[in-house]
Amino acid sequence: MIAHPPQFRPEDTTLTPSTPPVLADHELHRLLAEDTPFGDLTTDSLGISAHPGTIRFFARDPMVVCGVEEAVRLFALCGAQVRLLVPSGAVVPTETLLLEATGSAGALHRGWKTAQTLVEWCSGIATSAAAIVAAARRGDPGALVAGTRKNVPGNRALAAKGFRAGGAVMHRLGLSETLLVFAEHRLFLGAEPPARTLARLRGQCPEKRVVVEVHGLQEALVWAGADVLQLEKCTPQTVAEVVAALAAAGSTALVAAAGGINARNAEDYARAGARLLVTTAPHLAAPRDVQVRFER
Amino acid sequence: MIAHPPQFRPEDTTLTPSTPPVLADHELHRLLAEDTPFGDLTTDSLGISAHPGTIRFFARDPMVVCGVEEAVRLFALCGAQVRLLVPSGAVVPTETLLLEATGSAGALHRGWKTAQTLVEWCSGIATSAAAIVAAARRGDPGALVAGTRKNVPGNRALAAKGFRAGGAVMHRLGLSETLLVFAEHRLFLGAEPPARTLARLRGQCPEKRVVVEVHGLQEALVWAGADVLQLEKCTPQTVAEVVAALAAAGSTALVAAAGGINARNAEDYARAGARLLVTTAPHLAAPRDVQVRFER
Amino acid sequence: MIAHPPQFRPEDTTLTPSTPPVLADHELHRLLAEDTPFGDLTTDSLGISAHPGTIRFFARDPMVVCGVEEAVRLFALCGAQVRLLVPSGAVVPTETLLLEATGSAGALHRGWKTAQTLVEWCSGIATSAAAIVAAARRGDPGALVAGTRKNVPGNRALAAKGFRAGGAVMHRLGLSETLLVFAEHRLFLGAEPPARTLARLRGQCPEKRVVVEVHGLQEALVWAGADVLQLEKCTPQTVAEVVAALAAAGSTALVAAAGGINARNAEDYARAGARLLVTTAPHLAAPRDVQVRFER
Amino acid sequence: MIAHPPQFRPEDTTLTPSTPPVLADHELHRLLAEDTPFGDLTTDSLGISAHPGTIRFFARDPMVVCGVEEAVRLFALCGAQVRLLVPSGAVVPTETLLLEATGSAGALHRGWKTAQTLVEWCSGIATSAAAIVAAARRGDPGALVAGTRKNVPGNRALAAKGFRAGGAVMHRLGLSETLLVFAEHRLFLGAEPPARTLARLRGQCPEKRVVVEVHGLQEALVWAGADVLQLEKCTPQTVAEVVAALAAAGSTALVAAAGGINARNAEDYARAGARLLVTTAPHLAAPRDVQVRFER
Amino acid sequence: MIAHPPQFRPEDTTLTPSTPPVLADHELHRLLAEDTPFGDLTTDSLGISAHPGTIRFFARDPMVVCGVEEAVRLFALCGAQVRLLVPSGAVVPTETLLLEATGSAGALHRGWKTAQTLVEWCSGIATSAAAIVAAARRGDPGALVAGTRKNVPGNRALAAKGFRAGGAVMHRLGLSETLLVFAEHRLFLGAEPPARTLARLRGQCPEKRVVVEVHGLQEALVWAGADVLQLEKCTPQTVAEVVAALAAAGSTALVAAAGGINARNAEDYARAGARLLVTTAPHLAAPRDVQVRFER
Amino acid sequence: MIAHPPQFRPEDTTLTPSTPPVLADHELHRLLAEDTPFGDLTTDSLGISAHPGTIRFFARDPMVVCGVEEAVRLFALCGAQVRLLVPSGAVVPTETLLLEATGSAGALHRGWKTAQTLVEWCSGIATSAAAIVAAARRGDPGALVAGTRKNVPGNRALAAKGFRAGGAVMHRLGLSETLLVFAEHRLFLGAEPPARTLARLRGQCPEKRVVVEVHGLQEALVWAGADVLQLEKCTPQTVAEVVAALAAAGSTALVAAAGGINARNAEDYARAGARLLVTTAPHLAAPRDVQVRFER
Repeated sequence: MIAHPPQFRPEDTTLTPSTPPVLADHELHRLLAEDTPFGDLTTDSLGISAHPGTIRFFARDPMVVCGVEEAVRLFALCGAQVRLLVPSGAVVPTETLLLEATGSAGALHRGWKTAQTLVEWCSGIATSAAAIVAAARRGDPGALVAGTRKNVPGNRALAAKGFRAGGAVMHRLGLSETLLVFAEHRLFLGAEPPARTLARLRGQCPEKRVVVEVHGLQEALVWAGADVLQLEKCTPQTVAEVVAALAAAGSTALVAAAGGINARNAEDYARAGARLLVTTAPHLAAPRDVQVRFER
Repeated sequence: MIAHPPQFRPEDTTLTPSTPPVLADHELHRLLAEDTPFGDLTTDSLGISAHPGTIRFFARDPMVVCGVEEAVRLFALCGAQVRLLVPSGAVVPTETLLLEATGSAGALHRGWKTAQTLVEWCSGIATSAAAIVAAARRGDPGALVAGTRKNVPGNRALAAKGFRAGGAVMHRLGLSETLLVFAEHRLFLGAEPPARTLARLRGQCPEKRVVVEVHGLQEALVWAGADVLQLEKCTPQTVAEVVAALAAAGSTALVAAAGGINARNAEDYARAGARLLVTTAPHLAAPRDVQVRFER
Repeated sequence: MIAHPPQFRPEDTTLTPSTPPVLADHELHRLLAEDTPFGDLTTDSLGISAHPGTIRFFARDPMVVCGVEEAVRLFALCGAQVRLLVPSGAVVPTETLLLEATGSAGALHRGWKTAQTLVEWCSGIATSAAAIVAAARRGDPGALVAGTRKNVPGNRALAAKGFRAGGAVMHRLGLSETLLVFAEHRLFLGAEPPARTLARLRGQCPEKRVVVEVHGLQEALVWAGADVLQLEKCTPQTVAEVVAALAAAGSTALVAAAGGINARNAEDYARAGARLLVTTAPHLAAPRDVQVRFER
Repeated sequence: MIAHPPQFRPEDTTLTPSTPPVLADHELHRLLAEDTPFGDLTTDSLGISAHPGTIRFFARDPMVVCGVEEAVRLFALCGAQVRLLVPSGAVVPTETLLLEATGSAGALHRGWKTAQTLVEWCSGIATSAAAIVAAARRGDPGALVAGTRKNVPGNRALAAKGFRAGGAVMHRLGLSETLLVFAEHRLFLGAEPPARTLARLRGQCPEKRVVVEVHGLQEALVWAGADVLQLEKCTPQTVAEVVAALAAAGSTALVAAAGGINARNAEDYARAGARLLVTTAPHLAAPRDVQVRFER
Repeated sequence: MIAHPPQFRPEDTTLTPSTPPVLADHELHRLLAEDTPFGDLTTDSLGISAHPGTIRFFARDPMVVCGVEEAVRLFALCGAQVRLLVPSGAVVPTETLLLEATGSAGALHRGWKTAQTLVEWCSGIATSAAAIVAAARRGDPGALVAGTRKNVPGNRALAAKGFRAGGAVMHRLGLSETLLVFAEHRLFLGAEPPARTLARLRGQCPEKRVVVEVHGLQEALVWAGADVLQLEKCTPQTVAEVVAALAAAGSTALVAAAGGINARNAEDYARAGARLLVTTAPHLAAPRDVQVRFER
Repeated sequence: MIAHPPQFRPEDTTLTPSTPPVLADHELHRLLAEDTPFGDLTTDSLGISAHPGTIRFFARDPMVVCGVEEAVRLFALCGAQVRLLVPSGAVVPTETLLLEATGSAGALHRGWKTAQTLVEWCSGIATSAAAIVAAARRGDPGALVAGTRKNVPGNRALAAKGFRAGGAVMHRLGLSETLLVFAEHRLFLGAEPPARTLARLRGQCPEKRVVVEVHGLQEALVWAGADVLQLEKCTPQTVAEVVAALAAAGSTALVAAAGGINARNAEDYARAGARLLVTTAPHLAAPRDVQVRFER
C-alpha cells in the first residue's frame, strides 16, 4: 500500500526564494523525472516514505552561492516545505546554512541529489567567475569578465545565472543578437576591404557594436576600425602591444581578450589593457561542495 | 531579402552516423534554439549565408570520441550534408578527421558551436572515463568503473553515452531502479537490525541486488550481509582492510569504492580489492578540444 | 552580485482572475522565455531589479477586455503580486483600470510587454468581434457571428477566447469535429449526385449537421438539401436571393455568409437573411491600446 | 460575454493530496487539453459556467483506490477547491467518498470526465493487482507479484502507481536498468556456452541480478546458473518440476513465472514455487466504477 | 567501446506506411524514452548491439490491424529499415505478416516491445469495435457504433484511430465541439422548461445538433425536442419503447443508446431502434496478440 | 476501414525549400494538431482520403513571399510530395505559383489551411515591411526599418522571418540582449544624473550600444550622450528639430523614430533624419491572399 505522508501542498512553500528560478516548473520537473521517472525504489521499499524529516544544505567550502532558488522549488515540487536562507550571488563561508526543507522522507529523498547537484554545479560556475572577476580587477578595476556561450549542452540559463552571480556578464547569448566576425566568416567575404565590411555591418545594424575576432597584432591593425577587437589566444604581452598600437593608430576599438582566460592569468590580461576578458573557464569549473544533513 | 542557399534536405544526410543520436530531433532543436532562436545576425548581415562551404571537425588532442552522432544530426537539421568518419567510442590520435559537413555558410555557422561544444564535452567525459578504466585495470583486470548520477543538470543521456564510450558503466540511472541504502535512509529506520532491513528489501525486491553505502570498516561489518558494500570516501588502505575483513567474516559482498575516485587513484583502489569504482570525475572532466576548419 | 528583491511567491497571487487562463503555465512560460530567455539586461545592468514598484494596466480606448487572466498569471510567474479588476468579456470605457501588479522592478519589467501585448491583441479581437456582433444584430437580432479557424498560426486558444469575449461563437475549431464540404472536396467525388453525398454523410455522422460551401444561387439550389449552406463571397443581395429561393424550394437549410464579413457590412448580411456570419476579420483586428503606468 | 465565476486560485487547493501526483502539472494540462482544447461548449452555451456547485467522487464498487491525487490536482488546475478523503492505496468499500471539489460549474464540468476516467482506470489496475497479490499469498505468503512493462502506450507512470497501490512491484521499468536475456538475444550469441554468457554479464554488471527467460524444464536447467529464471508460459506443474529440478541440481536461481498470470491462477503458481509472479493482467483490467454526484 | 552497427538513416525507411502515424515523431520518441531512457543494458552488455538481424510482426489471432504505421515509424526512429505489409484497418487472418524491420540487434530490441505493445493495444480496440459494428449491423444495417471519450488517460489519438480502423466513428472528441446536455448540466438550469433550453442552445449553436442524455422513457418524452436523445443505461426494451413513443409524439429525435453497449448486446440495441450505439467497450478491449519473430 | 492512400514518405520531399523552416518539426506538428487533433472528419466521411491529387498555392496579389519553407514542410509532414518554386523574400506578381504538393486528398486537405494561413500571414508581414522600407529609402537611402518585439503572442520566430524577408531588421529580440532605457526604468533611478547612468551602463556592457527612449526635444538633449536616442511618438518635425539640436550640441547619437511608423509616414521620418524607423505596423498587417487550387 502507498503510505500517507503529511499533506502535499506545493503552494505552501511559505519561505520561498527572493527571485523566481530561471527554470520554469516544467523544466524542473524534467530534472526530477530524469532521476526518478517512476518512484523512489529504495525509500519506498524500506517503508519510510511517509516518515517526517528535515534536510539542510550547508556550504562545505566557501563559495559564491548559486542555484538555490531552483533547489527550493525542486523540493517544493516534491511536496516539502522549504526555507531559503541565502540567495544566489551571496558570498558565504564554510558551514553556512543555505536552505532547509521539511517534509516526508519520500519528498526529501526525491529532491535531494537533483537539488544538491544543481546547487553545487551552479555555485562552481559562480565561484569560478567571481575569482576571475577579482583577479581581473586587481589588474584593472574597470575590467569586465564575460562568459562565453560554450556552456554544457542545453544549460545556458543556469550557466548565465552562475556567471552573473559571480559578478561577470555574458559575452553573447547566441548568434541571433550580436555581431562577432570570425575568420570563418571572412573566408566567405573574398577580397572585400575591411573598411567596406565594417561599413556594411554598421549600415545594417546601427544599434549593434561590431566585434571582430583577430589572432594577433597584424590582424588587429587591419580591423582597427571595429568597435571591439577580440584577441583570440594571444599572450598578455601581445595584448599590451595591440593596445599600444591601436592607440598609436588612433583606433578607439575596445580590446577584449579571449581564449584560455582564467583566474591565474586574468590579472595579467587586465593589466595589459584588455577591457573585457572573455572566458569559458567557469563553464568547466569544479562544483562547490554542498553538505547535506538529514534530521529525523 | 532572404538569400537562396542550396536546397535544404534534412533527409539527404547521405552519410549518417552508425547509431541514432541519444537526443531526439526535438531535443537537438532545443540546443540549436538556445543558441540561435531567431537567425544568425552576423552571417546574415554579412550577406554570406547562401555561400557554399565545408566544415570539418578534427581531434586536436588524442581522445575517445563521443557525441559525433548528435553533431552530425545537428548539422543535418541546419540543412547541411554530413559525413561521419569516426563513431562514438573510437580512440583516435590528434588530427583525426571526425566529421565533415557541406552546405551553405548559414547552415554551417548555425550548427558550428553547438555541435563542437557537444562533441568536446562528451569526448571529455569519454576520455576521462577511459583513463579511469585503464588505471583500474592496471590494478585489477576485472575491475569496473561506474559513473554516478551526479551529472550536470539535465544531461544524463549524453553523460551516460560518454561513460559508456569510455568503457565504463553507469552505477545507477536514478532512484527508480536500484536499491542503494544511505545512512540518510537508515536514519528513518530506528533500531531495526541490519539483517532485518536486508531481509525486508530482499523480500520486496528479489530481482535487485542490495547495495549499502558505508563509511568505514565498522559499518562494513555491520552491513556485511548486503550484496554490495559501497565504501564512501575511504582510502585504498581502508578498502583493503574491509575486503580482508569481509572475507574473514565469510561475507560474499562485493566491494565498491566511491568518493573521490579518479584516474590517479583508481589503480590503487582496484588493487585494494574494490571490484567497482564509482566515480563522478568524468562528469567534471575538461572537454577535449575539437579543431574546426572551414573551407570555401 | 544578484540583488535580493522581495520574496518570490507565485502562489501568493492573492487577487487572481475569475477563471483559469486558457494557456497553461508552461505555455505562459514559453511566452516569457521568447522575450527574456536569459534575464533582463537593462534592468539588471541599471541595478534596479530589486526596487519595489507597481504597474497598472488601463484601457486607453474603450474596449471589450480580453486576455487579462493570462496577463495576471504572467506577472505572478514573474514573481509579482497581482490584482485583477476587470474580467475578460467586460466592456469598459477609456481609462478603466484593468489590473495592477506589485513587486520588484525586475518582475514588473519582465512581465510588462508580454502581458501588455497579449491583452492588447486579445482585446483587439474581442472588440472587433463585438462590433460585428452589434452590427449583425441591427440587421437581425437573432443573427450570430462565428469566427473562422484562420487564426494567426498557433494562437487558436487565445483567438477563440477573444471571439467569445466579444459575443461571437466559433464556426469550427478544426477539421476533426465538423462536416464542411468545400468544392475542393467535391472535386474528388466525381459525378455523385448531391443527394447521395448528403445521404452518405448523414449516414456516417448522424450527430453532425452537414455544412456545404457554395458560391452562388445555382450551387445553393443544387445543395439545398444540406443543413447549412455557407455562401462564400456573395453579396448581401445574392444572400437575399438565395434565402428566398431556398424558401421557395422548401429547403430548411440555414444560410451562413462567409468571406469578407466585417463590422461595416454585417448588418446588411444579417438583414439579407444570413443566420450566421462567418468572419475572419477579428483575427486581423488592430490591437486595443493598453496604457501602462509604473509607480515606484 | 464571458461569465464571472468565483475567483480562480489554483494555489488555494486547501485540502490537497498526501503525496504529489506522479504526473506533473504540464502533463495534467495535456490531459485536460486533449478533452477541452478550446472551452466547454455545452456548459458555456447553457450559460451556467459561473454557477457554483460541488462534485463528489464515490467508489461505486469496492476498490483499491488509485489516481485520486492526480484527480485532485486536475480539479485544482480547472479552478476548483478540492478536498481529498482517501489516498491512493486505500482499500475502500462501495459508496466511499473519495474526493470532493467545489467551484464553478465550468470548472467542475471541465475536470469531471478526465478526472473520473483517470481514477477509474488507475483503480482498475490497483484492484486487479491487489487481487493477484492476495491470490499469490494464499499460495505462498512470501510470493511477490510484479507488473510487466507492457502498459498501455505512454502510461507507465500511472500504471506503475496502480501496481504499487495494489501491493505489487514492477518487474522492470524498461530496457535501461535490468538484465533480462530473452531467446531473442541468445539468437545473436551463436554457440556461446551459457556459463560464459552469464559470466560476461556478471563481469559487466556486478550490481545487477541476471534474469533469463526460459520456456520449459530443459532450458531452465541449461540456464540454471542465472540469478532469476523467468518461466514463460509454463503451467504451474512445469513450474513445480523446474523448482524441484533446480533444487536437485543445486541451483539457487529464483523462479519467476510469467505469461498468462492472473488472479485465478496466481495461487497455483505461487504454491508451485514461483517466488515472483510477473503479470500483465492489471494493465488490461476493467476500470473500477466511480460514481459522480453533482450538487448545486 | 560503443559498437558500430550498420549506418543509421532514419530517412531511409524505404518502404513506409501508407499514411502518416497519428503520433508525431516527438511523441513516438516519448514512448521510446519511457522504455529506454538511457540505452539497452542487456543487449549492450551482451555485446550484440551491432549484429544485423530482422524482426517480423505476425498476427497471432485474426484481427483488425491497427497501429502498424506508428510501429513502422518507431523502428525507423531506432535506426532500422522497415517494410509495412498491411495497413491499419485491414482484417487479417492468423499468421499474417504485418511488418518487418531489418537492422542492428540494438535497433530491433529497442523498438520491439514498444512497437508490439502499441500494435496489440490498438488492434484490440479496432477488433473490438469491428465486432460491435458487425453485431449492430445484424440488428440494423444502418446502425452506427460510436466511441466515447472515456479513453485510457492521454491516448485519445490512438484510441480514435482504433475505433475508426474497426469501422466505428467517434461520438464526441471532447467538450469543445459538441452539445451534450447531461442531468449534471440541467441541475444548474433551475426550472427552465426544456423547450426554452433547447431553443437557447439552437440559437447559440445553429450548426450543431443538440444531444440530450436521458435515463428512461419519461425523460425522453420531456426532451423529445432534442436532435438526438442519448438513452443512458436503458435496456433494449426501453429503447424500443422510447422509439415508439417518440414516433407517436411526432418527435424526429434520433435515438442513441449508451452505457454498457458491447458486441453481445449491440444487435439487440440496433434492432430496438437505436440508430447510434455509443460504446466504451473497445477502450477496454483485450489487446490482440502479435507474434514476434527475430531472425539473424 | 481506413483507406490506403499512396505511400507516406516524409523523407521523400524531393524538391524541398532552400533553407530550413524557422519552426522545427515538433512546432509544425503543433500547428497541425491545433487544427486536426484527431483526423479530418469531412474528407474521411466522404471516403476520398486516398484519392490522389495536387494542390497549388498562387499569389493572388503581388507580395513579398514569406513562410513557404514552413508550408512545404507542413505538407511533407502530412505525407505529400512538395515542390517549392519561390523562396521567402522573393517579390512576386499576382498569379505566381509558389508551391505545389502532390499526394492523397487526405494529406492535401489536412495541410491546406494551416499552410495557407501561415503563408498569408507571414507574407503580410513581409509585404508590409517591404513597403515601409521602400518609403523610408525614398526619404533617405540609408535609413533602416526595424521591427519591434510587439509580435502576436508566441510568434516571434515567424514574425522576425517576415520582417527580414521584407528587407527590415529586428530592433531587439527581447530583454536579454539589448540596453533600452525607458522612462519606466528611470523612475527607479532617483535623481541620478544621466551621464552617470550612461557611464554605469557602458561600464557594465561595453559591447552594447546604449539606447534611450525619449519623448521630445528636451529629453533628447538631456540624454544626448546615449548611443541611440529613440524618439517615441514624435512628429517628423520634432525628429528634425532633435536631429538639428543634437548636431548643434555635438552629440553623435543616432536618432531612431518609434511609435506609429508606417508606410505612409516613413518617408517623412527618414527625411527628417531618423536613421532607424522602429515599427510595429507589419505585425498587424493584413495577410496577403494566397489562392489555392486543387487538381485531381
